[in-house]
Amino acid sequence: MTDTSPGTSTEFRVAREDLSRFMQAALAAAGADQASADAVTRALVTASRMGTDSHGLRLLPHYLQALKGGRINGAPNMMFHQRLAATGFLDADDGLGHLAGYTAMEHATAMAEVAGIGAVAVGNSSHFGAAGCYALTAAERGYLGLAFCNSDPFVLLHDGAKPFHGTNPIAFAAPVAGDNSYLLDMATSSVPWNRVQQFGAIGRELPDQVAANAAGQVSRVPSEVAALLPLGGSAFGFKGAGLGGMVEILSSVLSGMQHGFNLLPMGGPDMSTPRGVGHFFLAMKPDAFVEEGTFARGLANYLTDLRAQPATQGSQVMAPGDREWRCQAQRDAEGIPLDSANQLAYAEIAEEYRITPLSQLG
Amino acid sequence: MTDTSPGTSTEFRVAREDLSRFMQAALAAAGADQASADAVTRALVTASRMGTDSHGLRLLPHYLQALKGGRINGAPNMMFHQRLAATGFLDADDGLGHLAGYTAMEHATAMAEVAGIGAVAVGNSSHFGAAGCYALTAAERGYLGLAFCNSDPFVLLHDGAKPFHGTNPIAFAAPVAGDNSYLLDMATSSVPWNRVQQFGAIGRELPDQVAANAAGQVSRVPSEVAALLPLGGSAFGFKGAGLGGMVEILSSVLSGMQHGFNLLPMGGPDMSTPRGVGHFFLAMKPDAFVEEGTFARGLANYLTDLRAQPATQGSQVMAPGDREWRCQAQRDAEGIPLDSANQLAYAEIAEEYRITPLSQLG
Repeated sequence: MTDTSPGTSTEFRVAREDLSRFMQAALAAAGADQASADAVTRALVTASRMGTDSHGLRLLPHYLQALKGGRINGAPNMMFHQRLAATGFLDADDGLGHLAGYTAMEHATAMAEVAGIGAVAVGNSSHFGAAGCYALTAAERGYLGLAFCNSDPFVLLHDGAKPFHGTNPIAFAAPVAGDNSYLLDMATSSVPWNRVQQFGAIGRELPDQVAANAAGQVSRVPSEVAALLPLGGSAFGFKGAGLGGMVEILSSVLSGMQHGFNLLPMGGPDMSTPRGVGHFFLAMKPDAFVEEGTFARGLANYLTDLRAQPATQGSQVMAPGDREWRCQAQRDAEGIPLDSANQLAYAEIAEEYRITPLSQLG
Repeated sequence: MTDTSPGTSTEFRVAREDLSRFMQAALAAAGADQASADAVTRALVTASRMGTDSHGLRLLPHYLQALKGGRINGAPNMMFHQRLAATGFLDADDGLGHLAGYTAMEHATAMAEVAGIGAVAVGNSSHFGAAGCYALTAAERGYLGLAFCNSDPFVLLHDGAKPFHGTNPIAFAAPVAGDNSYLLDMATSSVPWNRVQQFGAIGRELPDQVAANAAGQVSRVPSEVAALLPLGGSAFGFKGAGLGGMVEILSSVLSGMQHGFNLLPMGGPDMSTPRGVGHFFLAMKPDAFVEEGTFARGLANYLTDLRAQPATQGSQVMAPGDREWRCQAQRDAEGIPLDSANQLAYAEIAEEYRITPLSQLG
């Protein structure tokens, strides 16, 4: 850590402790209370360590802007209403979705400990970063975890001409004895919206069957693209759209929120009106179905068989999460990279909020 | 109903009551008890009415063969072990998966009535037909329903060269006040295995990105195809494979069964050894999260907005299930069609089990 003045080097890497320190200071300066700042920092650092860069450190400026604008309540009074033995509602009081997510999953696992399974619908919330963070926190405590969230419309319905669903993610995690968790975290579109922007910036064509123009026709030209296709493309997108619909129903309909089509855009320009995002979290105790230990043994066998499968030439078969855990080990050792846009954004935050800048790893 | 001697006319249609009568008689003659025969009939007729022909009446000969061979126990003593307030295990005693499915979903909804949510893992079961049947039965009673099942390997892992997962389906249904349910029922591959056979039979190329040859390379030539690709194809199949893995973990690992890669093939030749298929069912009470009635209103609004979306030219936007309910209305009015292969199979069953043949609708 020799350089305390972040420039725009493409090799800029930071230690996760330093990144956490910076995020917590910035969030506090923008009005987040301790619990909120801790939750956002935990979620963003988790995503950045795993290589989920679309949902990692690049989102900090966005959350600071939403706190400053008043859209997000930095000191929420989140209230959990348990309705029955295994279900309840968390009113997130327009606070940060990350705090809502971790809090809701704590309630879900607590109910699962008693009833075998627990589910929490969350309303009056906001963008929560990567859905995988909350499924993962359940798995780290020994539970199966599921997390869902709606978002503003970018994705076409099957045969649709206009975006209707968000990229509505599904995250599923399972605890693996003595190892990192099984972790699936996927949008129900093939690619996220920022992939279109990235391909446009470098002048590349998009993969086939991932996006469409304003008439709903498949397009590979980023500048023409007006919407994403659901997973499955024009032939099998009824599956991706159906999954996106399931996520929507669980996230917004079950929590009494407006569905995603009616959400204010995440990107603004309105940064003062709360959006009313909805989430849904579910936790299950693996030993609440058959004899204790059966699940752990079965999952280990399954993963051993899966990882032993032959791959196509030049490839390797991996379980969901394997790529992420490999990236995490590497970034924990070498630091988390910031591209030039993020270096600039973090330098501006340091200046605006008078925070000691990030230290570049030497 | 003028013709009681089914020939091979391509216009052969039967009334669902007559189809039910025939199925129940055949199943009873092959050794199924009343509850088992009722459950199989209910599931197959439900699928055939909705147009899910891959999981409808064409499966009857298979179940009869499995009963006759002893693989399936026609008079099972299924035992439900409730472990905690909202979770339990149903031992299906090697009986028909359809009876296991309806029985497990009854327990799941009963627990959901008390605890808000209920989940049942099922072991020692067999093929259960269409997963949607069990999600639907929950929705028809006013609950959100989810159903999952594993199956023997036909689908590659992402970057894999050998089939590992089954077509592991996900079914999700939600009750819609005063209307047919919202119903998503999808394999986690793009197409089912019998689609490859159908395309081969008529000499057609497969769609792109749905199947692969023995080296795991994408192929559109049915005669070359050795495996299905997971939903998402070669570029985004990590999503389909991850969903297939989630289904596998919930269906077989949670229930203490062998995972699908180790299952005996559904198609035989061994028709005497029980396969030990696993299922997973989940039910939720919609009003167990927020105020009563909120869910029903929100879902109605969502579906109104969804169905009002503009479509690409020549298409129509539909909610999951809409196509199926339209087909059901048509087939209830006009009868359920049998193609020539099924006409032949049903004529043989009539002869073998001395059952009055199906009556062709006039």
